[in-house]
Amino acid sequence: MSNAHMRGAAPMEGRGAYNANSALQAAGGAVGVPLMEAAAASIAIDEGDRPVVCADYGSSEGRNSLVPLGAAVRVLRRRFGPERAIIVAHTDLPGNDFSTLFEVVDSSAESYARDDKNVFPSAIGRSFFLPLLPPGHVDLGWSSYAAQWLSRNPATLPGHIFARASKGEAASAFARQAKTDWETFLSLRAKELRRGGRLVVIMPAPDEAGLHPSAVLFDCAEDALQEMIAGGAITAHEREGMIILSYPRLPAELLAPFGPEGQFAGLKPNHCAHVPLGDVAWTQYEHDRDTAALAARRAAFFRATFAPSLARALDRASEERTNIAFLTRLEAGVRRRLLDRLSPTVNFVTTLLLEKT
Amino acid sequence: MSNAHMRGAAPMEGRGAYNANSALQAAGGAVGVPLMEAAAASIAIDEGDRPVVCADYGSSEGRNSLVPLGAAVRVLRRRFGPERAIIVAHTDLPGNDFSTLFEVVDSSAESYARDDKNVFPSAIGRSFFLPLLPPGHVDLGWSSYAAQWLSRNPATLPGHIFARASKGEAASAFARQAKTDWETFLSLRAKELRRGGRLVVIMPAPDEAGLHPSAVLFDCAEDALQEMIAGGAITAHEREGMIILSYPRLPAELLAPFGPEGQFAGLKPNHCAHVPLGDVAWTQYEHDRDTAALAARRAAFFRATFAPSLARALDRASEERTNIAFLTRLEAGVRRRLLDRLSPTVNFVTTLLLEKT
Repeated sequence: MSNAHMRGAAPMEGRGAYNANSALQAAGGAVGVPLMEAAAASIAIDEGDRPVVCADYGSSEGRNSLVPLGAAVRVLRRRFGPERAIIVAHTDLPGNDFSTLFEVVDSSAESYARDDKNVFPSAIGRSFFLPLLPPGHVDLGWSSYAAQWLSRNPATLPGHIFARASKGEAASAFARQAKTDWETFLSLRAKELRRGGRLVVIMPAPDEAGLHPSAVLFDCAEDALQEMIAGGAITAHEREGMIILSYPRLPAELLAPFGPEGQFAGLKPNHCAHVPLGDVAWTQYEHDRDTAALAARRAAFFRATFAPSLARALDRASEERTNIAFLTRLEAGVRRRLLDRLSPTVNFVTTLLLEKT
Repeated sequence: MSNAHMRGAAPMEGRGAYNANSALQAAGGAVGVPLMEAAAASIAIDEGDRPVVCADYGSSEGRNSLVPLGAAVRVLRRRFGPERAIIVAHTDLPGNDFSTLFEVVDSSAESYARDDKNVFPSAIGRSFFLPLLPPGHVDLGWSSYAAQWLSRNPATLPGHIFARASKGEAASAFARQAKTDWETFLSLRAKELRRGGRLVVIMPAPDEAGLHPSAVLFDCAEDALQEMIAGGAITAHEREGMIILSYPRLPAELLAPFGPEGQFAGLKPNHCAHVPLGDVAWTQYEHDRDTAALAARRAAFFRATFAPSLARALDRASEERTNIAFLTRLEAGVRRRLLDRLSPTVNFVTTLLLEKT
């Protein structure tokens, strides 16, 4: 387990899979768009012609960044005119599918860059738990469905796969890791933000009872993994290293570092909320009653978002064929189990708007 | 052939293949390192703390950029001290393997970024025949073994695969395309360069007799493709679309746009030379007399650099399995034929140092 301890989350699934199967994340991000517009409207920017710099922390393949970044660019254009250069830096782990990102950003009909020749997209392939951009360089930051991923696994987790569902000492270890990671993320972003800059963060959140809406997916995955052990597709040792390091947060958790003075590392929260999301897939199901399609959609979401991190624990994780076989089998197992366990879910996000003072 | 006409060059082979098989390009780039140092020493930079911006146009997977960028960063550090932020933007086509690039830049022992926390690597996935960075944004540019690739194929080329070896009307069409592309490249880079900035360009060149040192590789590939047609591995129609759009240039060709006044689009050439390169692989062969190893090395270079562009003409070019099967078979065919045709080769590069006035 020693190397499992060192392992952080994996990038989302590549070759367009995340873009095709992240409608939930898109819906969550949509909640943040008005915050992003407010942020773009309020950042302090000197006159002159230096480029305005936007950063998108944890972009994956980019599709879900187009709407919020597009909204920000429209506000910036109103404020600063069509000629001012705007740089957009999308960041993600080195293994992210940047080719899909660049294609989507330059070709998608909804892209912020498509009809604006003075917007300049770029990418940075480095963990956001490290410095990514020069000090004081960023005017406007966005991070959606990204900073919930822990930088490392601080505990073993026998019996199940979801870090946030752990109990006892493991739960304490994960909570400490989550606190450390969040403070690291904030400190680094604070340093990168220009004075008067803004950062919008969207994170998945537990519901009011502290439960995670994807819990049923994780249960199905747990069962599917047991079956894969029984069938010899994976070993019990590999299974032990499989932990979903997504750690959704409630507003109180995101606000904790700011303390009673409402300040941390030069950042000040201007807005924080816990927001429920509609269940788009279920609405579609009520319309078409296609159980198989709903199960397939949820399993595909599970695969693109969570399964790559589980695949890291495979002994032959570096072999693409092994990886794909694992993802495909796990997805099928989750889909099959979901058929009997479909229900509407209310997902929540925590939204946060920060100002660099 | 209509879509073949629209097609430009493909990215170099991914998954580390280009990094592993581009020693020739590294040797050519090494010729430019003193120019890059001279450029870094002479760029005009205001005081203050804005980041110094370096651009690497056509980076592929990054390994060959580490030495020249490292040399530039050392000079910049001497001039501006350890604290000044330096941004490095590596650019290549969207389909380039950026994951390998980011890993190499952050992890390689010889990387410019490894021991310097104030250097910030990034990437831009867009053709360098389009704008890549804001106007007046770049202090120092580098482009090695990249700008010889044409943006499109302007002619059919029956009977052989190498654009620069064509005759008659096809030769004129390629020469016109090469001229247009070079002027486009220069104009775009001129706009991106800050006044007082510098750009170093390294291009492969024909020898004094106008011959290309890789001609024997192209002949072997041509034979291998004929055999693949005969064996049904590819169709004659697919073969027709296979053209190597690399167009090496002599100094006179690169200097042509500058005219008698020595000015083009605000750029002024400070240095231009035609430089022979040693044949590292042959030197190794003289030591070990391992014919198979030499043939394998040359065939692997051919594959990583030229074969992906040929693979674009496959009817099922979007299928990775089809692509890899094609590359593997073509490489094997080239290797086998090379065994009887090995000889020392003298490659040439044209080097160019430009100043933005």
